[in-house]
Amino acid sequence: MKNKLTIIKVGGGILNERKLFEIFLKNYSKIKGLKLLVHGGGIIASNYMIRLGIPVKMIDGRRITDSNTLDVAVMTYAGLVNKNIVSILQKFNCNAIGLSGADANLITSKIRETKEIDYGLVGDIVSINDNFINQLLKLKISPVICSLTHNGNGQLLNTNADSIASEISIKLSKNYDVTLKYCFDKPGVLVDENDNLSIKKTIRKNDYKQLIKNNIISDGMVPKIENCYYALENGVSNIFIGDHDIIKSTEDCTKIVL
Amino acid sequence: MKNKLTIIKVGGGILNERKLFEIFLKNYSKIKGLKLLVHGGGIIASNYMIRLGIPVKMIDGRRITDSNTLDVAVMTYAGLVNKNIVSILQKFNCNAIGLSGADANLITSKIRETKEIDYGLVGDIVSINDNFINQLLKLKISPVICSLTHNGNGQLLNTNADSIASEISIKLSKNYDVTLKYCFDKPGVLVDENDNLSIKKTIRKNDYKQLIKNNIISDGMVPKIENCYYALENGVSNIFIGDHDIIKSTEDCTKIVL
Repeated sequence: MKNKLTIIKVGGGILNERKLFEIFLKNYSKIKGLKLLVHGGGIIASNYMIRLGIPVKMIDGRRITDSNTLDVAVMTYAGLVNKNIVSILQKFNCNAIGLSGADANLITSKIRETKEIDYGLVGDIVSINDNFINQLLKLKISPVICSLTHNGNGQLLNTNADSIASEISIKLSKNYDVTLKYCFDKPGVLVDENDNLSIKKTIRKNDYKQLIKNNIISDGMVPKIENCYYALENGVSNIFIGDHDIIKSTEDCTKIVL
Repeated sequence: MKNKLTIIKVGGGILNERKLFEIFLKNYSKIKGLKLLVHGGGIIASNYMIRLGIPVKMIDGRRITDSNTLDVAVMTYAGLVNKNIVSILQKFNCNAIGLSGADANLITSKIRETKEIDYGLVGDIVSINDNFINQLLKLKISPVICSLTHNGNGQLLNTNADSIASEISIKLSKNYDVTLKYCFDKPGVLVDENDNLSIKKTIRKNDYKQLIKNNIISDGMVPKIENCYYALENGVSNIFIGDHDIIKSTEDCTKIVL
């Protein structure tokens, strides 16, 4: 039987509110068994960009990353957010290590081809060095991975944190029984976006297209759910979407099932 | 016989000039055998502080680190500088991993006591997790360590990179034959500070106080040299001070000897 591994992707406002951030990390540190955290930090990056006078450009919720934007992403994701997560986890006796995709050649990527939109210095994942992650997990060290990769030729690239979480989950499901949890600002996929109690508890693949038609799944949630089915079809055991409470309990959130 | 380990501390202008930075890292990647890099990034941090409207406060070349200053230090040292070093080393086929003292609980510190000067969020080293560094070196992964530590209670602390380099060198000299090289903007300790050819080739401990009297060793060089003797007396085999060329050759630089 494979060992259990919990992979959490955290994003959104949680990272930007110190109190919530600490509660989240305290709960994370209490997860039994092996665990791995993937994070972004887009709100914090945007705030610094504004302070530095660098224009924030987004198309369909995706960041256009020029060279100045990448510098701020590297500073905030791999620096400010990642190291604060790690130092707080150490306080909670979780031996964490913060990593970007360049560290130990963890995640290589290639720059996204320009079709209709030029996203700039954005990378799509090519390979994941699961061997090194396995070594860390054996040493009881929990990786904390930020949403940056590298092209192997000296260029760091901005990479979607949801994609990193799903690709790592797939890769590690060779050796582990992986549960993937996406933590964001809402308690799950909501039938009525203004009612936090209207959680759609289960989304089956058969029902999924109907939910898009009914506009219950829209915008940024569409690629997120597509990532989930891709991961489930490639070895990941369980996937949940919800707010920070899903670390403790998956009763009130959305479960994605095939 | 112990394996050889080269530890380089790099600081100053090298990190701020892209071309020199790449040459330095190319030469670093060619060092045979085990290696470890320690870096700061003070000039880059100061530049971002000015852009963000945060006052830069220095006393005797040491940074007064308030909370905003620490955030910029974390962003630049652990983020921008560290991850660019790592991604460029990967390009040169050196499998590097970037770390702060919080990662894998690498370096704990305690906040410096306020005597005459309150340095703020500055930490003096308490412990070094050489076990994890050994594990990385066994995996042929080269650590790249920035000048940040943590107090074990969720607080990152700014820590002098020279001290990190010497303390790590001492700790690792238990298991390795350590050569420590301090790379900065000058080719060594200069008899005439305006003449780069006036390198003092060897500084013996017996002569050292006379050199301070004669003002050949002054200001920031005093604690640097004191760090060196401390390291030599505690197990480090060789110590050199010079510019980036000392990675390739130690012919034209300053050797510190007991």
